[in-house]
Amino acid sequence: MPRYALKVEYHGAPFAGWQRQADQPSVQGAVEAALARLEPRAHTIAAAGRTDAGVHGLAQVAHCDLAQDWTPFRLSEALNHHLKPLPVAIVDCARVPDDWHARFSAVERRYLFRLLMRRAPATHEAGLVWQVKNPLDVDAMRAGAAHLVGRHDFTTFRSSICQADSPVKTLDALEIAAVDGRSGPEVQFHLRARSFLHNQVRSFVGTLERVGAGAWAPERVRTALEARDRAACGPVCPPHGLYLAGVGYPADPFAR
Amino acid sequence: MPRYALKVEYHGAPFAGWQRQADQPSVQGAVEAALARLEPRAHTIAAAGRTDAGVHGLAQVAHCDLAQDWTPFRLSEALNHHLKPLPVAIVDCARVPDDWHARFSAVERRYLFRLLMRRAPATHEAGLVWQVKNPLDVDAMRAGAAHLVGRHDFTTFRSSICQADSPVKTLDALEIAAVDGRSGPEVQFHLRARSFLHNQVRSFVGTLERVGAGAWAPERVRTALEARDRAACGPVCPPHGLYLAGVGYPADPFAR
Repeated sequence: MPRYALKVEYHGAPFAGWQRQADQPSVQGAVEAALARLEPRAHTIAAAGRTDAGVHGLAQVAHCDLAQDWTPFRLSEALNHHLKPLPVAIVDCARVPDDWHARFSAVERRYLFRLLMRRAPATHEAGLVWQVKNPLDVDAMRAGAAHLVGRHDFTTFRSSICQADSPVKTLDALEIAAVDGRSGPEVQFHLRARSFLHNQVRSFVGTLERVGAGAWAPERVRTALEARDRAACGPVCPPHGLYLAGVGYPADPFAR
Repeated sequence: MPRYALKVEYHGAPFAGWQRQADQPSVQGAVEAALARLEPRAHTIAAAGRTDAGVHGLAQVAHCDLAQDWTPFRLSEALNHHLKPLPVAIVDCARVPDDWHARFSAVERRYLFRLLMRRAPATHEAGLVWQVKNPLDVDAMRAGAAHLVGRHDFTTFRSSICQADSPVKTLDALEIAAVDGRSGPEVQFHLRARSFLHNQVRSFVGTLERVGAGAWAPERVRTALEARDRAACGPVCPPHGLYLAGVGYPADPFAR
């Protein structure tokens, strides 16, 4: 059966997360249902990152096996047709080798977190950013973030239900950009690692917001990290500013 | 009665347009209802631009008269409280002289139109851009747009129900930017004039899209303009990529 890689964009709001669930809408379930419209049977797709409820996808990557030989263009067109009107879109599609795996072949995950700083409620960006009312000190946040980059035991910054074997991970980058968005000043966090722990990005951003607000000194991030204690973490921020922004593979399956 | 200028941001989707209507939701009606929560009586506010159904506001400007002496900060906070959960927000507020008028004092209107070029349906940007499936030739669109800048009889580019006294207007700028958006390549049109005719921006953009697609030579825009005939216009594009982006006054009422 030919295997296809799918690049999937989605709005997280209507879904209980990526992963299929018996009684709640999921992005995986939506894509599998669209596949079943093409080849009627049960489908199970694998994805690089299992995003939580409310988290968005810009370039999630999944793979599927199909009986029929589809051209990637026709497959993505057909899936997008059947995905309507859900806010899920196949933005790229490629034939991949049978042993290629969206999750196990991935060597990097990239996340974006958008934080909007303004008092008035967001209108166009509602549900697409985490909004805070007061301006934040971006330099202080950068100083705090610097303590997190590298190989560490991230026990402080993973949820208590995280199922990863080890809390030791290498954070390759946590870059913070001040951006003048259409709706006001944004802080955008760009994170890069081979893999992330459960709630790791939201634990980082919620903690760094405290630093930007002046409630935490930047050095307290290091203290919290070294405590290896979930209780030392700042508040976990809401999911709706978070985007799975990309997945890296040894060779880009979508390269043309 | 003290007069206040309000800078209003809104999502156009749930509204039949800016202007109050007896039987349909409007942005004006929403703001007036919020004012009535502060000072119970009928309120009538005036705005710089009466946007159509589905058109968004980034920085619409309106004014209101209130009996009470509000600090601008408290007024915008109270209005935003009462506007919830509608996607309308007062993003700035200022006390203005009694003879200052949001519409008649305005000397410039600025519009933004966002066009997303990609095949897969938009998810995060759905309702916020006009989507076309094929790439457009931005240089050709710029060449076409150049014919529109300046003082012209714009009969071709105004709706048949336009109520302006004269079709002669001066278009100060029509700049076209190719932007690498989060959801794909966008063409963003930035327009500037003292005032616009009804459907003028959507008539321009719909026509220029034909140029970008190669269906019209850029010179045909000049021929269409000179025809002074509504029938010579290209298709009028949909409203949901259009934003009232700003209003100019001899002195910025919101300057601090």
